[in-house]
Amino acid sequence: MKEELSKILNSIEETDKNILKIANNRLDSLVKPPGSLGTLEEIASKLSSITGKIENKLDKRCVIIMCSDNGVVDEKVASAPQMVTLMQTINFTKGLTGVSVLANHFNCQLKVVDVGVNADIDNPQIISRKIRKSTGNIAKEPAMTEEEAIKAIMVGIEMATCAKKQGYDCIGVGEMGIGNTTTSSAVLASLLDVNIEDISKTVDRGAGLSDERFIHKINIIKKAIELNKPNSKDPIDTLSKVGGFDIAAMAGVFIGAAFCKVPVVVDGFISIVAALCAYRLNPLVKEYMFLSHHSCERGYALAMNELGLKPSLNLKMRLGEGSGCPIMFSIMDAACSVIKNMGTFEEAQIGDEYLENLTK
Amino acid sequence: MKEELSKILNSIEETDKNILKIANNRLDSLVKPPGSLGTLEEIASKLSSITGKIENKLDKRCVIIMCSDNGVVDEKVASAPQMVTLMQTINFTKGLTGVSVLANHFNCQLKVVDVGVNADIDNPQIISRKIRKSTGNIAKEPAMTEEEAIKAIMVGIEMATCAKKQGYDCIGVGEMGIGNTTTSSAVLASLLDVNIEDISKTVDRGAGLSDERFIHKINIIKKAIELNKPNSKDPIDTLSKVGGFDIAAMAGVFIGAAFCKVPVVVDGFISIVAALCAYRLNPLVKEYMFLSHHSCERGYALAMNELGLKPSLNLKMRLGEGSGCPIMFSIMDAACSVIKNMGTFEEAQIGDEYLENLTK
Repeated sequence: MKEELSKILNSIEETDKNILKIANNRLDSLVKPPGSLGTLEEIASKLSSITGKIENKLDKRCVIIMCSDNGVVDEKVASAPQMVTLMQTINFTKGLTGVSVLANHFNCQLKVVDVGVNADIDNPQIISRKIRKSTGNIAKEPAMTEEEAIKAIMVGIEMATCAKKQGYDCIGVGEMGIGNTTTSSAVLASLLDVNIEDISKTVDRGAGLSDERFIHKINIIKKAIELNKPNSKDPIDTLSKVGGFDIAAMAGVFIGAAFCKVPVVVDGFISIVAALCAYRLNPLVKEYMFLSHHSCERGYALAMNELGLKPSLNLKMRLGEGSGCPIMFSIMDAACSVIKNMGTFEEAQIGDEYLENLTK
Repeated sequence: MKEELSKILNSIEETDKNILKIANNRLDSLVKPPGSLGTLEEIASKLSSITGKIENKLDKRCVIIMCSDNGVVDEKVASAPQMVTLMQTINFTKGLTGVSVLANHFNCQLKVVDVGVNADIDNPQIISRKIRKSTGNIAKEPAMTEEEAIKAIMVGIEMATCAKKQGYDCIGVGEMGIGNTTTSSAVLASLLDVNIEDISKTVDRGAGLSDERFIHKINIIKKAIELNKPNSKDPIDTLSKVGGFDIAAMAGVFIGAAFCKVPVVVDGFISIVAALCAYRLNPLVKEYMFLSHHSCERGYALAMNELGLKPSLNLKMRLGEGSGCPIMFSIMDAACSVIKNMGTFEEAQIGDEYLENLTK
């Protein structure tokens, strides 16, 4: 399976820089000061470079939600009990959660994938790709084996490839997994090679921890890194030692999206850590990524700077689930409308009958 | 007319803080960590406090675009010729401009108002409320009389009141007026009582000036303030000495929206300077305002800090026209959907048949 992953990683292609140039020329011909629609213009031309077309549509879009449990919850690093992972995994299919409501509002589908929920789930609306029930407790052991990490990544690639085949124009990536801000912070600290005494830079309060439990969470992450010694240069080693099935599978979606040339939205802290894993495996994946909102979680900005991309929304969100993706799809859709429907300077000329009225 | 304006300003009421509390309780009962949908939650409860209803809809929305010319263009402070004001005022009605395309995309109407375009316009799609053709050149004289400033504000109030009567759920404010980043910077510098040697803090390159012309623009603004001596404590004096008909009329829309309790979107640099004028006339108007995007114009952040509100979008836009409003309506609409459609913790409980499957 490692060879298969390597093959896919090596097959990822650069986006089309010729079309990018043509799209930028088109944008500069529109009746506005050059570049004055800012990120909307960047989104439009980036989409062009991905699809090879100047005019794009993002009618069919989905959020792929990777659901999994994390053994580290035994250390009381999360404010919610582990059963919430199962509860929300099911609630995604009932339209009750934040991302469900936003997806419905912005006309996009959810694909709920069980990669490691700590329960047997028999629900035809949930895609079952369970690696195993919950990872190990990273404060005491590795989260998973290298083989399991690769398997989880391959699930993500499968989901992206499948979405492409089903005709989705755009994919977003979300998650559900109590304890996954702890694992994400550990992965980020490893990838950025943060000194053990500076670990707190990558850690925040997740769904809402007290001061005391926040300090405890930082200490658990230190312990996990000191114990497991993830290789900062090796994202798969890092994922297997201190990550989660959710993060690995999300990294897989980013890789898969780039592999099959579908635009993909990075949403929130856990998502951007997974995006950084994918980026470290092949920097070209970044050319297919769009950042939705600037998460409140402290580590987000670190991962964002490392990726060198900027989010479009500043909504102080920290829910996860991929809840920012549907909003971002809507903005990307608007960008498509700009490049397609705005008038050019030529079209915007007004006739002599008006110019006669101009006061000299 | 001054008495009429005073009467309206004095009639503006606080929003309903009881409903705000009920809305916040409802949001806290939804199946997510409290506050984790950030600004979406703030928007939902702020809308409740404005309308007095927990569940709101923003189906009918419009952008009111104030179009006017500025005499200061004689000083070559703008990169585009004055006739572009007329051209774009007409193009708004043809669906060719940035805001037209975005309004169309997000299903909202445009109301194009001529408050001082430097030409006779005979077009039934443009609302004619011309104060006069172009303001005076602020480098040499006041922009307008106090009476004209009040008249322009009253046009804005009329437009907001009219939109309310027509059943609009939400109003956005835009503008078109070559030279209006110069007047906006001058108004902002006056309202913030910026020292004349620090004027550059409020000034930026507008649609795109060279270094040389940028320095020239700063000097013209200094000259305008030194010559006209606007009273920093008096927004109407400031508007009449160094402002524009567009800014004054936009301030009027903000006042009118608060007066008739309609949520109103502040968009971009010129819009936020107008919002600050309205806020200085009655701080309660702020309770009805929503900020769309963080404009690239340098002065935006200063005005934003003074208002004490934060924008939701970070799109590096600097087009003006109210182009961010349609996107913001869409986000506000999503916030309404969250408070209305998300499940409560109670509704989100899962049955025993699932809990039995939970791995102990």
